[in-house]
Amino acid sequence: MKEFIREQILTVRKQSPLVHSITNYVVMNNTANALLAVGASPIMAHAHSEMADMVKIVGALVINIGTLDEYWVKSMELAIGQANTLGKPWILDPVGAGATPYRDEVLKQLLELKPTIIRGNASEIMALARKNAGPTKGVDSTEESAAAVEAARYLQQEFGSVVCVSGAVDIIVGKDTTILLSNGHPLMAKVTGMGCTATALIGAFAAANPTDPFCATVSAMALLGIAGEKAAKLSNGPGSMQVNILDQLYQLTDEAVASLIKLEETHV
Amino acid sequence: MKEFIREQILTVRKQSPLVHSITNYVVMNNTANALLAVGASPIMAHAHSEMADMVKIVGALVINIGTLDEYWVKSMELAIGQANTLGKPWILDPVGAGATPYRDEVLKQLLELKPTIIRGNASEIMALARKNAGPTKGVDSTEESAAAVEAARYLQQEFGSVVCVSGAVDIIVGKDTTILLSNGHPLMAKVTGMGCTATALIGAFAAANPTDPFCATVSAMALLGIAGEKAAKLSNGPGSMQVNILDQLYQLTDEAVASLIKLEETHV
Amino acid sequence: MKEFIREQILTVRKQSPLVHSITNYVVMNNTANALLAVGASPIMAHAHSEMADMVKIVGALVINIGTLDEYWVKSMELAIGQANTLGKPWILDPVGAGATPYRDEVLKQLLELKPTIIRGNASEIMALARKNAGPTKGVDSTEESAAAVEAARYLQQEFGSVVCVSGAVDIIVGKDTTILLSNGHPLMAKVTGMGCTATALIGAFAAANPTDPFCATVSAMALLGIAGEKAAKLSNGPGSMQVNILDQLYQLTDEAVASLIKLEETHV
Repeated sequence: MKEFIREQILTVRKQSPLVHSITNYVVMNNTANALLAVGASPIMAHAHSEMADMVKIVGALVINIGTLDEYWVKSMELAIGQANTLGKPWILDPVGAGATPYRDEVLKQLLELKPTIIRGNASEIMALARKNAGPTKGVDSTEESAAAVEAARYLQQEFGSVVCVSGAVDIIVGKDTTILLSNGHPLMAKVTGMGCTATALIGAFAAANPTDPFCATVSAMALLGIAGEKAAKLSNGPGSMQVNILDQLYQLTDEAVASLIKLEETHV
Repeated sequence: MKEFIREQILTVRKQSPLVHSITNYVVMNNTANALLAVGASPIMAHAHSEMADMVKIVGALVINIGTLDEYWVKSMELAIGQANTLGKPWILDPVGAGATPYRDEVLKQLLELKPTIIRGNASEIMALARKNAGPTKGVDSTEESAAAVEAARYLQQEFGSVVCVSGAVDIIVGKDTTILLSNGHPLMAKVTGMGCTATALIGAFAAANPTDPFCATVSAMALLGIAGEKAAKLSNGPGSMQVNILDQLYQLTDEAVASLIKLEETHV
Repeated sequence: MKEFIREQILTVRKQSPLVHSITNYVVMNNTANALLAVGASPIMAHAHSEMADMVKIVGALVINIGTLDEYWVKSMELAIGQANTLGKPWILDPVGAGATPYRDEVLKQLLELKPTIIRGNASEIMALARKNAGPTKGVDSTEESAAAVEAARYLQQEFGSVVCVSGAVDIIVGKDTTILLSNGHPLMAKVTGMGCTATALIGAFAAANPTDPFCATVSAMALLGIAGEKAAKLSNGPGSMQVNILDQLYQLTDEAVASLIKLEETHV
């Protein structure tokens, strides 16, 4: 797996895949910068009149419902429809799942469109699986990732998606394999949209390797976690952390990632 | 008051109150990061279909009209209606008051809903009180804060709101008490949305202390002003200033705030 | 020209012109900060109900279609109409031109309104001139600037606009004169929205000098390119680069710009 991850990092930098994000206003700048930092090319667009055409030219589609409204949900559906028609990978970030009935209703519809990959924190993944996760505490995780593994497995089986539960330990659940990643740093949770960045990077890696969304997800999460660890050592707080993570995503060599990765694989 | 402010800072960090911001696109990322840095949990959402539900789960609501349009004004009205029904504090940031008749018409309607707290610069507060402030110069203050005290008193009496006029000296006007804060640094005015950050932090403190919006406002303004002073010493310009303020909001101890605060209290 | 550029930089700082940007969500924060850093005052607004009034109080209008939709296109048309009525300069940034038919249709309509200045990368300028630029690769330039000079000349003659093709070498095409600027640094291309920042700064300089949009464009591009060069020396990657460019835009003296500028002028 380590060799594969190294290869993927180099492939993204070489191919510079186009990633179309329909995402929330809060994170757009940082998401675009993170995509550029790993070597990908970001596109953000949502006009109904161009959704089908835009998806034609990109390598992957990222759907993040953070600041959804009726117009944007329609944009998401149009883009996903085209991605499915063309067989391109699309990634769902169910921001704030469980916070309101409207959000859950929209997520139910999006799930029916069978995301290639889903990434959320533990409480979002549990809400998505309609397991009771208790009252949602904003968009930050209040559950340990481990507690959401059951929900992730359910989503994987029901919708065929690779499911990533991110947290202190990131858990990536595929058809037969589950991988635990223990990289990362607590200061990452103090930077808004770090989860959204993770989802966008998964989009870049899935675009570069559309036939293996499981390994693409592991690669993206490993790269971000290690960038976060290195950035934290250089940071005085969340402001400098946001800046340093971008620098690290840009600087990190594939060798460094391979040597620092903390990965555990299980088969079920 | 100093002891109270120390306590409030610790309470926000401990409670991590949810703050719902309906704010402008320009500042969303920085606002969310500032809320996280002081220990609060940001939510940004505006879909009509979820406004009433979202306000149910938060501790305070921040309304900022910076990039308003018809849809977003309706979102604001729905959210405020729910906040008022549930007795939750809401804070109004009248960005660009006086710039256009549309903005002033919207603000007139929002004022009728009786904000718990209002924060603006001198020219915005004067425009809000329909005192002639001269031509608005964008969204930055062109009047000395002191000149707006009369307007602030009028708004306090007419709508029952705590009113904060921010500037070189921040003036917080309550029912019987006015407090002047002389912390802060001129470089803060070169970072976009610093006023919006102030309003968001007031939201966090009001959520943690809903029964005393006056002291909540003083606490938030003191914390930001002192963070700005400390950040300015470490900064080479507005770019590093924006980053360093977030680091300082995260790092500042309650003792440091109490020892650095420059506060003057008057009773009327 | 060097003396003129020095003067312009000082004029912007002294006048602090209001610049109204109808721009994309991704870059709004950074654009506003860049405008503040050079001494201008940013306004971002798009409500149909206030477009005509807002344009009345500003010095220039910047139109950037990056995240366009039907509502925002109408906002752009209303604002441009008013700018043309009042004889105020407006600047077009055709982000993603050529990416979708919808984008090209909108751009065709906006071109008919005769932008004072147009700034894009080589592939955008070529798409705008309906010269075949090959498949667009996102919003980053994939063509050498030089290859787009013909397209720029065509747009200049057809619509009377000053046309700036930005890239490793920035090319500014006026009626009789073409200027090449060789300042800048490759790391600028790894920061999202650096082109959008360029367009916004052109807006500030055009507001301060509405009678000479050609020189205003040269001044803004020179300032940003030199800020980028200086910032790159202080940066560890695109995160710190974004921060350092803002600091440099704020710090750079007019003397430093005049001494570092790499400018070549040709007459045709």
